[in-house]
Amino acid sequence: MYVSHINKVEKKKVEMEETSGTYIQWLISKEQGAENYAMRLFTVEPGGVIAKHQHPWEHEIFILEGKGIIGAGDEEVEVSAGNFVYIEPSIPHWYRNTGNGEWKFLCIIPMKGVK
Amino acid sequence: MYVSHINKVEKKKVEMEETSGTYIQWLISKEQGAENYAMRLFTVEPGGVIAKHQHPWEHEIFILEGKGIIGAGDEEVEVSAGNFVYIEPSIPHWYRNTGNGEWKFLCIIPMKGVK
Repeated sequence: MYVSHINKVEKKKVEMEETSGTYIQWLISKEQGAENYAMRLFTVEPGGVIAKHQHPWEHEIFILEGKGIIGAGDEEVEVSAGNFVYIEPSIPHWYRNTGNGEWKFLCIIPMKGVK
Repeated sequence: MYVSHINKVEKKKVEMEETSGTYIQWLISKEQGAENYAMRLFTVEPGGVIAKHQHPWEHEIFILEGKGIIGAGDEEVEVSAGNFVYIEPSIPHWYRNTGNGEWKFLCIIPMKGVK
C-alpha cells in the first residue's frame, strides 16, 4: 500500500502554449506502482487557462473545489465541487477558471498518456 | 463529453459479508463511455466497515472528506481529506470509518474489476 498527501507532492507549472496559472501534481503513477492509469491533481489559479489541445486518450475528472469551464468538442460546461466529467479520447478540450479562488480537480488518464 | 454531479447518482448499499454502513455510487464507467477504468464514490457512515477482501485488480483512492482507516496486507493507516492511496492487486484490504461524520472517498479500478 502506498499512502501520501497532496501537501507532500511537488507542484509543477504546466508549460504549454497559451496556457497560464496552471499547476500539476502527479499523485499516483508508475513510480507508486500503478500500471494501468495515473491520478493527477490540477490547480488552476483565478484567471488561469489550459489551452485547447487533444490527444488519443481519455480523461476522467472529478472537481474538488473552485469553479471553472471545461470545453470539449463544441460545448462548454461550468463545473464545481462534486461534478465529474468524462472526456473521450481525441476530442479537443480546454479549461478556464471562472471563479475567484483556486480551481482544483483530479484528472485520471490511462498509462499510455504518461510520458 | 459527459458531465454530471454526485447528487444525481444513485447510492447503492454495498452488500458483502461483515460489511455495514457503506454505499457506492458509480460515477464513470462503461455506461458513460469509459473503456479502461471506472470511478466510484464510496460513502461510509460513522461506525461503518468494509470487511477484508481481495481481488486481482488495484485501487487508486482519493479521500474527499471524513476520516477512516484503510488496511492492506499487514498495515493500517488513518487517512482524511487530501490523502491518496494505491493498493496493489491481490492484496487483502479493508476499511473502517473512525470519525464522527461520513467518510467519503473516490476509488478508481481497472475495467477488469467491473462486473
